[in-house]
Amino acid sequence: MKKTFPLSKVYRLLEPGPVVLLTTTRAGRPNVMPLSWHLMMEFMPPLVGCVVSNHNYSFASLRASRECVINIPTVELAKIVVACGNVSGRLVDKFNDFGLTPQSATRVKAPLIAECFASLECKVVDMKLVTKYNFFVLEVVRAWIDPAKRKPRTIHHQGEGEFMVAGRTLHLPSPKTSLGGK
Amino acid sequence: MKKTFPLSKVYRLLEPGPVVLLTTTRAGRPNVMPLSWHLMMEFMPPLVGCVVSNHNYSFASLRASRECVINIPTVELAKIVVACGNVSGRLVDKFNDFGLTPQSATRVKAPLIAECFASLECKVVDMKLVTKYNFFVLEVVRAWIDPAKRKPRTIHHQGEGEFMVAGRTLHLPSPKTSLGGK
Repeated sequence: MKKTFPLSKVYRLLEPGPVVLLTTTRAGRPNVMPLSWHLMMEFMPPLVGCVVSNHNYSFASLRASRECVINIPTVELAKIVVACGNVSGRLVDKFNDFGLTPQSATRVKAPLIAECFASLECKVVDMKLVTKYNFFVLEVVRAWIDPAKRKPRTIHHQGEGEFMVAGRTLHLPSPKTSLGGK
Repeated sequence: MKKTFPLSKVYRLLEPGPVVLLTTTRAGRPNVMPLSWHLMMEFMPPLVGCVVSNHNYSFASLRASRECVINIPTVELAKIVVACGNVSGRLVDKFNDFGLTPQSATRVKAPLIAECFASLECKVVDMKLVTKYNFFVLEVVRAWIDPAKRKPRTIHHQGEGEFMVAGRTLHLPSPKTSLGGK
């Protein structure tokens, strides 16, 4: 039930710092890993930076295919998110094992995850810092959101088995869209 | 009342994606700006990447001094955080105007902010992506935390005047410290 979401608003999904599920495809086989080392780098076109360790099975897929999907889960998926991080795509089919449903994307081969409320199709646009820091710059080329999810409770990794769950919303009208970070 | 905080645990403060207040010093004069475009890049030594727009007064200070402090505010400071983003350090002394108290750091010239529960002294270690993306890689060289703040309610920018306030903590014990992002 996802609909397209304006690229100019993608920062509103990622800037609060949620854990995301990164999907990639390798030889036609999809894989998924949790990730919270990401940041917005530009509003339009939306650029996202992320660190994917070269110890992860997804690293080689991302580097070779230069495509991925960033899927944003809510708290209902928290146990699955943790489980996805504790096993390698080398050994298992995580979609099958954890009951995640792959959906075809439109601009990349990696799948959207049906159970996530938002999915961002991405192309790798810069790998200059990959060798030194495992840092990829991605461009979001298409965004999807489930409009029925009005108050998505994202989860935010705090380490050592702890996650902060998104709480209340504070409204502080400001003349600027951005925070000053741009 | 801040005490030193282990560098190996810095990721636990930044990974959830809080808005931070970045302080820099230029010709002996401190400045501060809100920022939420940041990510963890390495555990030890802790590396943090951030985008500081070249439209911001802090950009030139950061590039020239190669030093800054990342201060983490809680919800009580939300109005001040927004105010800091709506005026330039070119025009005003934000510490004075917004009642923020600068404290001397030990490893850098930029000040800690007394009112923030955590402060991370940082040195710029990589500027390869500064020209293209305004992206700096920082190393945290000393970290401070107020141990009296047991449940710091950080704020997380969602754009258009909205902030998510950190909610409850979910415990999901896992054999791994990290999430799979590393």
